Amino acid sequence: MSDSNPATERKPLFFEDFFVGQRFSSGSYVMTAERIRAFAAEFDPQPFHLDDEAARSSLFGGLAASGWHTAAVTMRLNVEGGLPLASGLIGAGAEVAWPRPTRPGDTLRVESEVLEIIPSRSRADRGRVIAMTRTLNQNNEVVQTLKSQLVVFRRPAA
Amino acid sequence: MSDSNPATERKPLFFEDFFVGQRFSSGSYVMTAERIRAFAAEFDPQPFHLDDEAARSSLFGGLAASGWHTAAVTMRLNVEGGLPLASGLIGAGAEVAWPRPTRPGDTLRVESEVLEIIPSRSRADRGRVIAMTRTLNQNNEVVQTLKSQLVVFRRPAA
Repeated sequence: MSDSNPATERKPLFFEDFFVGQRFSSGSYVMTAERIRAFAAEFDPQPFHLDDEAARSSLFGGLAASGWHTAAVTMRLNVEGGLPLASGLIGAGAEVAWPRPTRPGDTLRVESEVLEIIPSRSRADRGRVIAMTRTLNQNNEVVQTLKSQLVVFRRPAA
Repeated sequence: MSDSNPATERKPLFFEDFFVGQRFSSGSYVMTAERIRAFAAEFDPQPFHLDDEAARSSLFGGLAASGWHTAAVTMRLNVEGGLPLASGLIGAGAEVAWPRPTRPGDTLRVESEVLEIIPSRSRADRGRVIAMTRTLNQNNEVVQTLKSQLVVFRRPAA
């Protein structure tokens, strides 16, 4: 489904590998009208995500992807090549917003930046990484911001 | 895709129709292993969302749905019968967390509660509704919390 290159074997990152200000960039993904409608039909069947005509007379002024579709594609781009997979990287929570709609034909990519590194007080083997992921279209306009908390393990002893 | 009854024609709600403490309940949706794997293959291809064996040795201890899958299903349940559609109901942002994984075979439903009602200062025709949506499994365990901001229009003059 993705339009970026197939993921090559990526080395997992551990807690020690992250630092504040660290940046990651992904490949890209084209949001076709077909993909927008298929996701909406399954998960967000509102007229402005499904039908051109209905969308034109809505607040969106034209067909727009479900915000949850943009979020799902953002995850795909991060898994493939944005924020690298770490051993035991689990999302403990996130704040998401959609400052502008994703439109048919938009080419999306993500840029992530590490904001905070927080060692666990109770568990010596892990910590939290707070990251900001921006999803951008082909005009470098932000279509989603996602501030997420990742639980990341420290490198096991050799 | 949904296991709840087909949506009947629902009356849109306007800003005036919401009140603090108002509650909405949805139908239900079964998260089969097949659905979990299909979503993960497209949007979150990490081993613990795709493969039983890999999942058993992960932090999840068994196959678990992508959090973004749980979020997408939550949207579906809300559109179908949880938090009612309003004229121009747009998500302006949300905080999402997954306190426990969604497992194959889980039957999900959502319960939403209105937390705050905020008239717009600058635009007389609309306001914001802050809602908490909890996604529950068949044991009434919370698998997702979602605090969302909805932009809702006032009822147009007749």
